[in-house]
Amino acid sequence: MTQKIKKIALLTGGGDCPGLNAVIRAITKTAIVNYGMEVIGYKFGYRGLYNNDYVSLTLDSVSGILHRGGTILYSSNKDNLFDYQVEENGVKIKKNVSDIAVENMKKEGVDVLIVIGGDGTLTSARDFARMGVKVIGVPKTIDNDLASTDVTFGFNTAIDVATEALDRLHTTAESHHRIMLCEVMGRNAGWIALESGIAGAANVILLPEIPYDINKIVKKIKDREDNGREFSIIVVSEGAKPKNGEVVVSKIVADSPDPIRLGGIGNKLADDLEKLMPEKEVRCTVLGHIQRGGNTSTFDRILSTRYGVGAVELINEGKFGQMVCLKGNELSSDSLENVIGQKSKLVDPEGELVKIAKKIGISFAD
Amino acid sequence: MTQKIKKIALLTGGGDCPGLNAVIRAITKTAIVNYGMEVIGYKFGYRGLYNNDYVSLTLDSVSGILHRGGTILYSSNKDNLFDYQVEENGVKIKKNVSDIAVENMKKEGVDVLIVIGGDGTLTSARDFARMGVKVIGVPKTIDNDLASTDVTFGFNTAIDVATEALDRLHTTAESHHRIMLCEVMGRNAGWIALESGIAGAANVILLPEIPYDINKIVKKIKDREDNGREFSIIVVSEGAKPKNGEVVVSKIVADSPDPIRLGGIGNKLADDLEKLMPEKEVRCTVLGHIQRGGNTSTFDRILSTRYGVGAVELINEGKFGQMVCLKGNELSSDSLENVIGQKSKLVDPEGELVKIAKKIGISFAD
Amino acid sequence: MTQKIKKIALLTGGGDCPGLNAVIRAITKTAIVNYGMEVIGYKFGYRGLYNNDYVSLTLDSVSGILHRGGTILYSSNKDNLFDYQVEENGVKIKKNVSDIAVENMKKEGVDVLIVIGGDGTLTSARDFARMGVKVIGVPKTIDNDLASTDVTFGFNTAIDVATEALDRLHTTAESHHRIMLCEVMGRNAGWIALESGIAGAANVILLPEIPYDINKIVKKIKDREDNGREFSIIVVSEGAKPKNGEVVVSKIVADSPDPIRLGGIGNKLADDLEKLMPEKEVRCTVLGHIQRGGNTSTFDRILSTRYGVGAVELINEGKFGQMVCLKGNELSSDSLENVIGQKSKLVDPEGELVKIAKKIGISFAD
Amino acid sequence: MTQKIKKIALLTGGGDCPGLNAVIRAITKTAIVNYGMEVIGYKFGYRGLYNNDYVSLTLDSVSGILHRGGTILYSSNKDNLFDYQVEENGVKIKKNVSDIAVENMKKEGVDVLIVIGGDGTLTSARDFARMGVKVIGVPKTIDNDLASTDVTFGFNTAIDVATEALDRLHTTAESHHRIMLCEVMGRNAGWIALESGIAGAANVILLPEIPYDINKIVKKIKDREDNGREFSIIVVSEGAKPKNGEVVVSKIVADSPDPIRLGGIGNKLADDLEKLMPEKEVRCTVLGHIQRGGNTSTFDRILSTRYGVGAVELINEGKFGQMVCLKGNELSSDSLENVIGQKSKLVDPEGELVKIAKKIGISFAD
Repeated sequence: MTQKIKKIALLTGGGDCPGLNAVIRAITKTAIVNYGMEVIGYKFGYRGLYNNDYVSLTLDSVSGILHRGGTILYSSNKDNLFDYQVEENGVKIKKNVSDIAVENMKKEGVDVLIVIGGDGTLTSARDFARMGVKVIGVPKTIDNDLASTDVTFGFNTAIDVATEALDRLHTTAESHHRIMLCEVMGRNAGWIALESGIAGAANVILLPEIPYDINKIVKKIKDREDNGREFSIIVVSEGAKPKNGEVVVSKIVADSPDPIRLGGIGNKLADDLEKLMPEKEVRCTVLGHIQRGGNTSTFDRILSTRYGVGAVELINEGKFGQMVCLKGNELSSDSLENVIGQKSKLVDPEGELVKIAKKIGISFAD
Repeated sequence: MTQKIKKIALLTGGGDCPGLNAVIRAITKTAIVNYGMEVIGYKFGYRGLYNNDYVSLTLDSVSGILHRGGTILYSSNKDNLFDYQVEENGVKIKKNVSDIAVENMKKEGVDVLIVIGGDGTLTSARDFARMGVKVIGVPKTIDNDLASTDVTFGFNTAIDVATEALDRLHTTAESHHRIMLCEVMGRNAGWIALESGIAGAANVILLPEIPYDINKIVKKIKDREDNGREFSIIVVSEGAKPKNGEVVVSKIVADSPDPIRLGGIGNKLADDLEKLMPEKEVRCTVLGHIQRGGNTSTFDRILSTRYGVGAVELINEGKFGQMVCLKGNELSSDSLENVIGQKSKLVDPEGELVKIAKKIGISFAD
Repeated sequence: MTQKIKKIALLTGGGDCPGLNAVIRAITKTAIVNYGMEVIGYKFGYRGLYNNDYVSLTLDSVSGILHRGGTILYSSNKDNLFDYQVEENGVKIKKNVSDIAVENMKKEGVDVLIVIGGDGTLTSARDFARMGVKVIGVPKTIDNDLASTDVTFGFNTAIDVATEALDRLHTTAESHHRIMLCEVMGRNAGWIALESGIAGAANVILLPEIPYDINKIVKKIKDREDNGREFSIIVVSEGAKPKNGEVVVSKIVADSPDPIRLGGIGNKLADDLEKLMPEKEVRCTVLGHIQRGGNTSTFDRILSTRYGVGAVELINEGKFGQMVCLKGNELSSDSLENVIGQKSKLVDPEGELVKIAKKIGISFAD
Repeated sequence: MTQKIKKIALLTGGGDCPGLNAVIRAITKTAIVNYGMEVIGYKFGYRGLYNNDYVSLTLDSVSGILHRGGTILYSSNKDNLFDYQVEENGVKIKKNVSDIAVENMKKEGVDVLIVIGGDGTLTSARDFARMGVKVIGVPKTIDNDLASTDVTFGFNTAIDVATEALDRLHTTAESHHRIMLCEVMGRNAGWIALESGIAGAANVILLPEIPYDINKIVKKIKDREDNGREFSIIVVSEGAKPKNGEVVVSKIVADSPDPIRLGGIGNKLADDLEKLMPEKEVRCTVLGHIQRGGNTSTFDRILSTRYGVGAVELINEGKFGQMVCLKGNELSSDSLENVIGQKSKLVDPEGELVKIAKKIGISFAD
């Protein structure tokens, strides 16, 4: 490393996710304890970078946050500085304000920017790298759908929450001989439904990647009844869709500021099933935002800590423009240039986990 | 006790509720261990009584169920034998089939029937008592709205679930500066919203008993912003309604087979708030069925055990036609004749708990 | 109230307990929001009062602490200002330094002191009241053994932890056909063992109030085996003792700075049982400090909030020298003069809860 | 596969571990649903094989056990049929009774035996394979110390329990400015201490693989005090030992039937630290058996299901004498001949996870 790094900044962008605080803590501790760096955190993602709105991060300010969900730096889903909405002469226009951001960093003497975020946030990170900014990326996706890393923090906590919900629904389903649907996150990738479905003893799992045939669901329920099981548990990804291609709630989901709230496919499917099986009681629960928050799981705390330390080590090794990632069980890295634009890591309908699920009798209604 | 009780039967009616299995276990153990009684359980509430569909309950069959939600005897929301729907000559008619039920009990040698259920189920229990059947009631209401008992099982577990959900929503609300609504159970009585709201650090609590003024909600949110708190948590009973009297979702709720699923007031209110505060992100989570199931809380396990033992003690003392209840911290009993028809125990807008909540700054938007 | 109260101080004394932070939060919010009072918190109980070491308590400083165990004001088990250990001329002597404390309060303009603590801490509170200080007491006892109040915060959380531990021990006990002992808190009062034992499906409960006959324990285990139950769960209060009066670990417990750590009776009993039943595997777990900490239960959060609000209301009503308490389900108060010196509230061997436990087959080995 | 497999048997050996029931369920479901095999389970490990004591495993018998710790087949730590203790003519002798076991399998028509267990149990499995029995192994080690597989079930649940305990200890440590030690499982391999220590924000982690210098612990505590942190959390493996080589509790641990119960190193270290820092309060909690039991974590439920399905797939592929294992994220297999006798997978003092821990300031007192 030719030039000594004295001051680093970090920011969190996109939807919050359990583990963000653990990453912030690990970065701050590693940078201060090992390399005597100064650390600041921009607030609300790129917006803080634009407004030069930041807090100093010290050993004190990251104390007691390891287990807490959310992000002490706040986050924003919307602010892309390469296409920022500003008001000029009373008119709202889109404008590239990334120069101002770079100026702000220089003014504060920030040598390196660590960006923690999902696909959108990291795309801007790459663009800053192209402008010559020393950038390090940390991947964040609660849906676990980034191709460039095997597993990311937040996902394990989310399936813990979903699995506990399925455990709860089981007792009611059994007591009342009901069909219980549970809609979980996953608009494009069905990992949360798949893993929580296996862990939560679901009978049917519906994923965006495997369009469903509602008659197959009905058949599975009836087969169970023939074997004396008068209740069934169905896990539905919010992005699940019927086989005939009609994407039931696509317009609402696309337009809504709160697609999770509207749910839709779960409740729609509950209605459909009740029509096909009028003698059964069908109920639906849309888990929604409780999947994102609260205490971070043990697994995610460790994973986040590894990512955080790994990010600072990349700085120490002078590997700018890289994103820290996990390959198998090993910390590794990849260039942001490679990472951006890769297709999402979807559930493979022929992959091991789907096969495992089928072997123990779970139906995907395909 | 003049005549020795040799055989008792129990049944669970209405919506399931954490603690039912603990009551079944306590009744069975107490009856067998102390009094050498034989115990059977009718399945699916009164339907099992009508169809003489039952299981023998032994020390073995109640082993390992103390902590489990639901009911091993199954339950049904619908079957009232005094007004039972039967099919005669291909036509569905309502008919009083309580005689058949009494006949079934006699045939099996059942001396006493213990009925565990809510208002509807216990009304039938009283009617059986009037027919001369030896009946004991055990109150069940997850909403905690029975006037005749201070507290019932299931309620504590429900507020535990709701409070944990609020804890989870907090981290996201804070990270994104959002308004998070959480709709909880309580169509007529707002106890779950009130207690989980206090325990979950809500800023606004909306109850059926205290119609809300949406402008007061907006004011509270703005006041918080003025004090640097840019997020707010709102707990909404499913039966909450605006002050102007317009009961937003009443028709749907009244007609629906699944009012919990439809939620409605929570999502409706989220829409309304977004219109009034377009600059804020508002999100809603409808907790739904996860409030009813899963592991029973410590508190409810103990309470249920007390109710179950108390029910058998009433038999031992020959106090038939009575319902076991809790007054203060003491087990007690009241006659089913007194209990039925009492008005629900609603939240008193001038009561201690509402006052406590207001003192720490929680708004009821009244 | 003749004289307006402008500034109040609080402190927490004795062992920590889930709910302390919730009390601090409720006091601070109530005092500021309703009465515009200024609030400070002395650190480390009376020691902070003596050293005039305090923090200002604002709405900000009590934000986010409702659910957290422990006390943000810190606590100390040892510092009694009426008998304080000071060093004078190189010699450690005990000295009454309460005047200095009163002086400190005057200097800071503190009108009222709220003391949150157990018997020892509240005794000093009464003594300050006798000196003319305006004092309010809030009772704290994780063992639930204060006679003057029906239930206090921390206890519910403690039995939650103990019950979850018993749930965990069950699966191992059953898989290996073992005798599992679990030693819980309760040196003089056995409430934690009694309630967690009922909730955790224990087979034997040993309390300080009911000396045990080890042969009765062996008999219970053998009776279970005769009925096909080859494992048993025993809950032991740390203060449980054998019937013959020999208090096995009394000296160690009395002398030790960490009686919980040493446990003793649990391990001693495990040894004894193994000698009497050499064919059985006997295991013991001493729960220790995990019973005191972590997240506060829903029940305790509500209870603590009520106590905290109640304390400030006593100030508002000018009821100094009183302690807030709970009678049945109602907030109430009693004078510190009455409260101090009352005998501990022990488990009544003839009381309802012991009877309930016996009815469902739990043995107390008496 | 030349010969059709019609009937398989399974057994669980060694200490219980969360996930065993999930494996049993997955094996049973896969074998019945996909291959129409008959499945039986020997009780108490090899002892059931010797006594021909088994239960039939059906879809019904494995219903509802996915989440439950322990093993419905029971387990035994001691029974090695190649060196079995039998009584002949009133004298207890060791004898190879494996022939009888093989005979029993033939008698029942068992084609394949699946053995779920740790190193000792699998060694016997290999020996049965050498005798020509078709055997499949499933690795079980709560300590995660098997070299032949990257991760096994039970470990994640154990670190969840340990991490939650550390969370609880934190609040008390902080409130009282204490040193809190927590002794966790791990006699030879320190994985549980290492991972729970990172996840639970420990300040010092002591492992069997990295002998500790008590002066380094004292230094770490004092360094923290100098930085205003007046409490410290220390996680200790039960097998941790001081640097000078004196293995403090070795004899007791070696001789004891219940090494977990005795703990020892934790309490011994607490005593030593109190002597070196008499002004500090030091407390120790020995977690013991609660690490093994209770509900299985989401992660372990999925992992166990994969292992169970994988074991039956090995049968289907005719790969006898193999053990299912996980390499990276992939299910794989290895021959029992290779697996047995491999050295345990210990924590590498120079490995990634130790480095990560050191980077964020955790001391190993080395």
